[in-house]
Amino acid sequence: MTQAQVGTTARDALGIAADVRAGRRTAVSVVTGVIADIEARDTRYNSVTRIFGPAAVARAEQLDQRIARGEDPGVLAGVPFGVKDLFDIAGEVTTAGSIVLRGNPPAAHDATVVARLQAQGAIAVASLNMDEFAYGFSTENAHTGVTRNPHDPACLAGGSSGGSAAAVAAGLMPFALGSDTNGSIRLPAALCGVWGLKPTFGRVPRDGAYPFAASLDVVGPMADSIGDLRTVFEVMDGRSLGGLPDVASLRIARLGGWFARNISADFTAAIDAVMAHLNSTKVIELPEAARARAASFLITASEGGNLHLPRLRQRAMQYDPATRSRLMAGAMLPSATLVQAQRFRNWFRARIHELFSHHDVLVAPATVGPAPRIDQPTIVVEGREVSARANLGLFTQPISLAGVPVLSTPLAHPSGLPLGLQLIGAPGAEAALFAVAGELQRAGLARCTPLTTGD
Amino acid sequence: MTQAQVGTTARDALGIAADVRAGRRTAVSVVTGVIADIEARDTRYNSVTRIFGPAAVARAEQLDQRIARGEDPGVLAGVPFGVKDLFDIAGEVTTAGSIVLRGNPPAAHDATVVARLQAQGAIAVASLNMDEFAYGFSTENAHTGVTRNPHDPACLAGGSSGGSAAAVAAGLMPFALGSDTNGSIRLPAALCGVWGLKPTFGRVPRDGAYPFAASLDVVGPMADSIGDLRTVFEVMDGRSLGGLPDVASLRIARLGGWFARNISADFTAAIDAVMAHLNSTKVIELPEAARARAASFLITASEGGNLHLPRLRQRAMQYDPATRSRLMAGAMLPSATLVQAQRFRNWFRARIHELFSHHDVLVAPATVGPAPRIDQPTIVVEGREVSARANLGLFTQPISLAGVPVLSTPLAHPSGLPLGLQLIGAPGAEAALFAVAGELQRAGLARCTPLTTGD
Repeated sequence: MTQAQVGTTARDALGIAADVRAGRRTAVSVVTGVIADIEARDTRYNSVTRIFGPAAVARAEQLDQRIARGEDPGVLAGVPFGVKDLFDIAGEVTTAGSIVLRGNPPAAHDATVVARLQAQGAIAVASLNMDEFAYGFSTENAHTGVTRNPHDPACLAGGSSGGSAAAVAAGLMPFALGSDTNGSIRLPAALCGVWGLKPTFGRVPRDGAYPFAASLDVVGPMADSIGDLRTVFEVMDGRSLGGLPDVASLRIARLGGWFARNISADFTAAIDAVMAHLNSTKVIELPEAARARAASFLITASEGGNLHLPRLRQRAMQYDPATRSRLMAGAMLPSATLVQAQRFRNWFRARIHELFSHHDVLVAPATVGPAPRIDQPTIVVEGREVSARANLGLFTQPISLAGVPVLSTPLAHPSGLPLGLQLIGAPGAEAALFAVAGELQRAGLARCTPLTTGD
Repeated sequence: MTQAQVGTTARDALGIAADVRAGRRTAVSVVTGVIADIEARDTRYNSVTRIFGPAAVARAEQLDQRIARGEDPGVLAGVPFGVKDLFDIAGEVTTAGSIVLRGNPPAAHDATVVARLQAQGAIAVASLNMDEFAYGFSTENAHTGVTRNPHDPACLAGGSSGGSAAAVAAGLMPFALGSDTNGSIRLPAALCGVWGLKPTFGRVPRDGAYPFAASLDVVGPMADSIGDLRTVFEVMDGRSLGGLPDVASLRIARLGGWFARNISADFTAAIDAVMAHLNSTKVIELPEAARARAASFLITASEGGNLHLPRLRQRAMQYDPATRSRLMAGAMLPSATLVQAQRFRNWFRARIHELFSHHDVLVAPATVGPAPRIDQPTIVVEGREVSARANLGLFTQPISLAGVPVLSTPLAHPSGLPLGLQLIGAPGAEAALFAVAGELQRAGLARCTPLTTGD
């Protein structure tokens, strides 16, 4: 749904905003309804860590007053949303999924993207679960628990923005914000069957988002429809994408090699159908994908280790054990190894930029398969069973290194848990990704189906 | 001297080129004269490591034939020059001052800047001594010996491009090429009393120059006059600087704080005289200079360590002991430390760019004082006697981190060993530095006086 339907209550962002702007519903009724829904249903998913009840209702009341006065309430008027637990919300302590930061003072200001969204009428209602300090792919948090996949609560939601993906997939809110360093938007979006965007590195301001690895971090939206995703991204970005390119004019290729191994025959067939619809038979290799993954991992470990080292020296035992050991190991990595990874990144970026002189959109799987079970948090790679928390990023980490935009697209499939694609573009070329994603949604090849109260 | 003088034999580059272009001398006579002079006099200085006799003479013969045919032989026709022992010279093994690389195949091509100079008629006659792998400030090399300061052979020439500075100061050749990572052009230029330019990071191609620290290395010229320095730089840069700005229009300030401590009253008075001539009373602080020096040191150690680690694993004992231990320590530095240095560099560059929105040229000493004695290779910093090899870069290292251009200017002073200034500009603003340097030369405040055969 990308617009309000007659006779139903819109649940997508653009539909809610249309209802609120037209006076069919008040912002207060929307917000109180969402909060009640979270309280009633999120016990199954554990996607929400805090509800910003009084602040959200107060904001909704102000919005309703503005509408009553005839003022323009913004394109996202009354639309409730959640934020991964690392975005500053004025008056709340930003914890980044950790107890280490709980003694910090409350944030003085909203994160820049949160402020931009709220300036357009959207209302932050909750913070959402994540791996501690965003260091993981599973949203298994020693302090706040594991987030469950709405499509099968016995399964992982993926991470580290797992709360954001699960909240949208559960139909609790039409969109949520996440952050992506090595796949933390794309993976949970794929495993929960929602749309997600990792914007071009450096494009969207990340001020007020708790950092992880400074040379890789981006913030981005997850949403229930490609229309919502686009509008939310445009507000976060501070400008319109304008007209999208004609899909027929785009040079589209599929990534082979590294990105064709370790996935099931079913998944391969689903990607075949997408490529056939896009009239592309071209398969290309991303050079040195395995090395790119390793470099991204090493840079993340070093930058994360540097960021946390002063605190680790003082109170290491407050960290989630899995995060603590990774950060310590990262901080102590020999500098020669980091320099090698940085040298490789320069080389790899140059290769990626060459690729994009011949192609507009590259298509690759987002994961090796559907969400792993929580009681068996592993995946199979090259015939070996390995940790999901560490290895789910097999197909997302190499792309991170290049800083290019990626639109995580939920494949439509007849049964089973969700599967997702990565639509990968040149730096700054998000419009091409939205064009292809929109075409796949129109053709019924991509689809997000959030649960409803009755599910 | 910047042009041939009647009745004398020009020894500066522009004078030699004028003589050769006019047919007053042949290139062969110039080159054979220089080679004979090196063989006769360099035993005192040990600035030269190899003479490219047959190749240089053959090139000179070709040049004389071109002149005889009426072809344009280039702006540096017949001008002999030397290169720090890390520039590729076709047919020669590039050793970078080490025996580790002696088994390498000869270079297939000249380094880009060497090729540009030779395309304008200049003739490479010799390679010049350096600290092993450019890692030092003293040109004390375990394999090739120490280079002696022509103004007092009991003293150091400085490093790591010490052979280049000494060869020009000794009057063996009008210009030479060096490289500067943390001060390796500026320091020996200052201690030997010649002109030196560290161009803006990234401006002049360094292809074919053996690397040290990739994010800091630049190549540049040292010369016997500001006119020669400019012409050589323009040829290396591949374009003319055009008209220089009016010195009266430039906003000039002196660096205080870190850059005013540890220097003698004499040196301070000499800088006072320069600032008075330039009509500037402004003194500013470079923020966090000590931290900038540390960051430059740590980045150098890490990048150098990364570069050499594969070879150190195989044949560490072939390295100069002083270089070996530094490279090993650098390679093993914890990555968190390197990341911190890189984060600081980003901050520091932003501060430097802010400074240059209010100033055009900053003036600072190049060293704490004149060349140390070879039998006592130490300097005094904050009252403590410390290694010259490690600490001569006190005033050059902080500037390196910002990647800005610096013109090392030999102060004119009545007696004693040379002292040098750094004229520091905004990225790409070499022209402002040449304007100020030219004014100081015209005013008699800066001067290079190479020795002659009779000295």
